[in-house]
Amino acid sequence: MTVLDRFFEKDRAALSRIISFIENREDGYLRLLSRLYPNCGKGYKIGITGPPGAGKSTLVDKLASYYLEEGHSVGIIAVDPTSPFTGGALLGDRIRMQELSGKGEVFIRSMATRGSGGGLAAATREVSMVMDAFGCDIVIIETVGVGQVELDIAEVCNTTVVVLVPESGDGVQTLKAGLMEIANIFAVNKADRQGSGRLVSEIRHMLDTRQKRDDWNLPVVKTEAVNNVGIEGLKGKIDLHREFLLSQKSAEERLMERARYELNMITRNRIIDTVVPELLDEQTVNYYARIISEGEVDPYSVAEELVSGIDIKKKVKV
Amino acid sequence: MTVLDRFFEKDRAALSRIISFIENREDGYLRLLSRLYPNCGKGYKIGITGPPGAGKSTLVDKLASYYLEEGHSVGIIAVDPTSPFTGGALLGDRIRMQELSGKGEVFIRSMATRGSGGGLAAATREVSMVMDAFGCDIVIIETVGVGQVELDIAEVCNTTVVVLVPESGDGVQTLKAGLMEIANIFAVNKADRQGSGRLVSEIRHMLDTRQKRDDWNLPVVKTEAVNNVGIEGLKGKIDLHREFLLSQKSAEERLMERARYELNMITRNRIIDTVVPELLDEQTVNYYARIISEGEVDPYSVAEELVSGIDIKKKVKV
Repeated sequence: MTVLDRFFEKDRAALSRIISFIENREDGYLRLLSRLYPNCGKGYKIGITGPPGAGKSTLVDKLASYYLEEGHSVGIIAVDPTSPFTGGALLGDRIRMQELSGKGEVFIRSMATRGSGGGLAAATREVSMVMDAFGCDIVIIETVGVGQVELDIAEVCNTTVVVLVPESGDGVQTLKAGLMEIANIFAVNKADRQGSGRLVSEIRHMLDTRQKRDDWNLPVVKTEAVNNVGIEGLKGKIDLHREFLLSQKSAEERLMERARYELNMITRNRIIDTVVPELLDEQTVNYYARIISEGEVDPYSVAEELVSGIDIKKKVKV
Repeated sequence: MTVLDRFFEKDRAALSRIISFIENREDGYLRLLSRLYPNCGKGYKIGITGPPGAGKSTLVDKLASYYLEEGHSVGIIAVDPTSPFTGGALLGDRIRMQELSGKGEVFIRSMATRGSGGGLAAATREVSMVMDAFGCDIVIIETVGVGQVELDIAEVCNTTVVVLVPESGDGVQTLKAGLMEIANIFAVNKADRQGSGRLVSEIRHMLDTRQKRDDWNLPVVKTEAVNNVGIEGLKGKIDLHREFLLSQKSAEERLMERARYELNMITRNRIIDTVVPELLDEQTVNYYARIISEGEVDPYSVAEELVSGIDIKKKVKV
């Protein structure tokens, strides 16, 4: 019985093996993704994002508990683009798992790397796909920071919750436009602390003054994750947003959109992984770096020259 | 007299025009970068990074003042990957300019975009190059956040200062390994506030326990930027780090390294800008998205097929 057979029989160890296989880009990982693709598309992806110390992990665990209690199977991906640790379950994951696993079928995976930004976002997309194919109805992606990786990951998610806390620096001032744009729901966590009411008002005021993107009324909910307060309300808003999305587009349109997005992302990443190293092999780089450093040519002209040597033969007639 | 002529005569308006020209990727911007390249390499690039609310802008302004007083010409690039505003001098920039411009030759530029991560880092590299070619001895790049863009930008800088404040969330807990790796100097700003001594100890302890990358003893300095306290000490450490770098490698090695890095970055970005859109033209994407959404093929197989149609003719014999 192959690992893939066991994966489809919902063997947790096989899921873990397959995630590692894909994360490590082992030989044949693309064939494996091709193989899993038809089983994807049923899992709903929820992004939980916000500054360090906002209590995201606790919030995610409490939220996951509600989905588990409803009988859903839940995958959690904890992404930290600023940590060098990656692969496998970390100690913290195991503790989280212990607390959650009594409640139902849950799988937690930490991802962190200092590799290229595209790399981490792509890996997160792939791992969420694997969890989806495994049968997770809900995949929660938890990310820290306010950087590009977070914005890229938000694109993978159906609903993105931005978590803030009363003491987040200068309050809503730190809430930059990038986060504004990715939020479908705001959660003010640690709402028992001083200043939470003011933060809610500030966010609401900011929402009133901005241009609306669509007909979705962006909700602001108060939560106290450690006390399990407000989480059910948050889940209600997530479910509402899911219904909103379903009402906006036909199933066919959603499938086309997803296919378009994935084709673009996957092809782009494959070009970076294959064409770039082939064009810039060590010998070529050393040769040109030498003459650039000697002032004979500039790197822009060399890059143009190299890129002009790329020929696209469209093999497949459209 | 062309804009470029005026640029080389140190006309500030021409500098501004050329930066916008390059930022907007106007026709011929690559030829322009080629043209400017031979004039680059003399400017020293200092990165100032840290969480929102750490007082980076004030710190940068005070630091710039010291360099200006020494007769250096200073360029400042304020990068905010989470803000959608970009191009030209913002109101905040003009206020900062007014305060600094009495002290010497200074130029400030804000950059912010939600475009691709590579895009912002590449644009920052290019703008710092233009300021370098213009004759800025010192280019200070101020970035917010802890995301990938920040890590990419740190690679452009010769010396990177990570700024923290006593109230940065859970103190040194929030200081993730990514920031650790890019720091050449730590500055604990707002050092008059409670907890600054503890933060300094925590950072020192963390530094003691980690593996050293090289012979550089990573300093931790206390600053109160608003009161102009500790800035001269910070500048002293930056100058020391510059000397350290000079002692580590020969001029030739440094030139080769820079050429190698720039050739890699520029070629990679050119491939993304030219090959990706050519391969994924609208017709192709629509055709494949349709059959992917109908379940006939998966996007991984399509991407492989498309990428296999890329042929690299090495025109230039190495």
